[in-house]
Amino acid sequence: MRSTPSSPVGLHRVLDSAGQSLPQAARALDAGPELWPDEVRIDVDTLNLDAASFRQLADKHAGDGDAVRAEVLTIVAERGKMQNPVTGSGGMLIGTVAEVGPDSPLGLAVGDRVATLVSLSLTPLRITDGLARWDGRSERVPAAGTAVLFGRSIAARLPDDLEPDLALMVMDVCGAPALVTRVVGEHVAQGASPTVCVLGGAGKSGSLSLAAAAAAGAGRTIGVVPHEGEAEVLRATGLADAVVVADARSPLGLSDAVAAAGGPADVTVVCVDVPGCEQPAILATAQGGTIIYFSMATSFSAAALGAEGLASDVRMLVGNGYVPGHADLALDLLRRTPAVRALFESRLEA
Amino acid sequence: MRSTPSSPVGLHRVLDSAGQSLPQAARALDAGPELWPDEVRIDVDTLNLDAASFRQLADKHAGDGDAVRAEVLTIVAERGKMQNPVTGSGGMLIGTVAEVGPDSPLGLAVGDRVATLVSLSLTPLRITDGLARWDGRSERVPAAGTAVLFGRSIAARLPDDLEPDLALMVMDVCGAPALVTRVVGEHVAQGASPTVCVLGGAGKSGSLSLAAAAAAGAGRTIGVVPHEGEAEVLRATGLADAVVVADARSPLGLSDAVAAAGGPADVTVVCVDVPGCEQPAILATAQGGTIIYFSMATSFSAAALGAEGLASDVRMLVGNGYVPGHADLALDLLRRTPAVRALFESRLEA
Repeated sequence: MRSTPSSPVGLHRVLDSAGQSLPQAARALDAGPELWPDEVRIDVDTLNLDAASFRQLADKHAGDGDAVRAEVLTIVAERGKMQNPVTGSGGMLIGTVAEVGPDSPLGLAVGDRVATLVSLSLTPLRITDGLARWDGRSERVPAAGTAVLFGRSIAARLPDDLEPDLALMVMDVCGAPALVTRVVGEHVAQGASPTVCVLGGAGKSGSLSLAAAAAAGAGRTIGVVPHEGEAEVLRATGLADAVVVADARSPLGLSDAVAAAGGPADVTVVCVDVPGCEQPAILATAQGGTIIYFSMATSFSAAALGAEGLASDVRMLVGNGYVPGHADLALDLLRRTPAVRALFESRLEA
Repeated sequence: MRSTPSSPVGLHRVLDSAGQSLPQAARALDAGPELWPDEVRIDVDTLNLDAASFRQLADKHAGDGDAVRAEVLTIVAERGKMQNPVTGSGGMLIGTVAEVGPDSPLGLAVGDRVATLVSLSLTPLRITDGLARWDGRSERVPAAGTAVLFGRSIAARLPDDLEPDLALMVMDVCGAPALVTRVVGEHVAQGASPTVCVLGGAGKSGSLSLAAAAAAGAGRTIGVVPHEGEAEVLRATGLADAVVVADARSPLGLSDAVAAAGGPADVTVVCVDVPGCEQPAILATAQGGTIIYFSMATSFSAAALGAEGLASDVRMLVGNGYVPGHADLALDLLRRTPAVRALFESRLEA
């Protein structure tokens, strides 16, 4: 056990000379397996590379799996973490808890099977098997090695009753239903029975958001999808009181469609990863309502200036992917909502 | 009075063929002076070009004022609005209400002296004097012509008791103190006496935000400034209970400085227009706290992924520049707070 001071966000493992970077921004981390007292060590068995990162590597090496594997090994050896230098992104990992420091606040025990819910781009990682079991041709990387969780990292125990791949897929988007639960609950606590509109309602985060809204007391749920094919899928689930086909980038198209389905919305949840949905979402939302932007394609200035330009008194939230208890909440929603589970399982098979 | 259908957000004046653009995104607007029933016409007397827009034009024409004037005239003639095609930004205008449509909800009367609080980039504008009184060398443009306000536009009457330039400067940043008032009020309503930290506390939106926080019931206010010179200015005003010098881009530097001044903050207000303040603001904010991002340099993904990476349960708000009553609230704060007024007046003289 190391005895120099440590930081719950991992500053003590940043090797950059300045010492002012957080682990995600750092060039390199100390990935040594010896722990500080508030840390946890994990024996890795699988890395799941972020889709954008894997695509960049595969494209760069024209699909040559050996070259992709060699570059991943070089990155991890040089940086002490798996952070693609071009995309900046990482991924997540699955493993088994090997050691828990006496001051760790994470509540984990040796032997727990866990998935990390913070990005690999900030997780100290050492690989010890040369990735010999990986052909370099998929995002799923069988691996042996060790990773470290800081005091403020997030890891979730893999549930016994769900396939690990299914659980991982749910955990990957678990921030959305958790924040929707909280926001809808705030409206309900004020005596409202809010109308909740989810853009991208047939997707992973969208379908969980619809289920979360209903469970939290929404008066009406509206799912917006881009074409009739997805509308049929979403209608069959019964997750939304109304399903409408509309282009989420079209200001008039979206607000008219939402109005016809019982809108405007008191809470609008943006789960579609295309640019240009900021103002349409604002127009589809009632004065005094809330918009939660989960899409990484959201432009901060388009949202801020868009609401001002429309004289729209809406509360706009940056979709923080962390809410305490988010993984358990999402897994419970999946268990309790057969339609959501069927939707996720159909994606596993695809 | 025109009798075809109109839209409160001005879609009826968009000339682009598709007809799906909002006025801000449109290439060209119908700027004709004949009104639809829910509109207001203003006789313009001054345009205030957005600083970024004017700088781009002045740089492009190497300071040749005649060339700058000619380009502004061309833009307005071709687009029906003053929107810089490179920066996309506009500015605001001052004028006198000339006609009020019978269905206008804005509460304005003929003869009112007003400033528009929506951007020129979406305001139908015609110029009739060739900008003959402007030398093309400053952002302030004496002008004759007409502008149109839609049903959902925002305009504020210029107060009788304040210099128009002073009032304009306050109105330009009035969204910040209004949203701070609301958010601090929410914390107070839950029985809290929140600590409010303002990054950029000596600036225009920052000083008004500090005054707003105190008026709304903050238990403690902390102003963060980048160097000792600004610290002296802010200390002299007495607007903050504590003034600290820190780099708002430094995660450790900022959170340590805020902690030493009585933090972490329950509400953090980001009013500094430099990139990279997202994670430092998150680290300086208590779990369960709120961050309001007013800086246009804010990166949506840095905020969203940053909070997740730090396992930080903070509510992050996009700083919507519109809150009902925002101009009156900010002007009242200025009147009631001599220190804020002195700070603004010293900037007028500068």
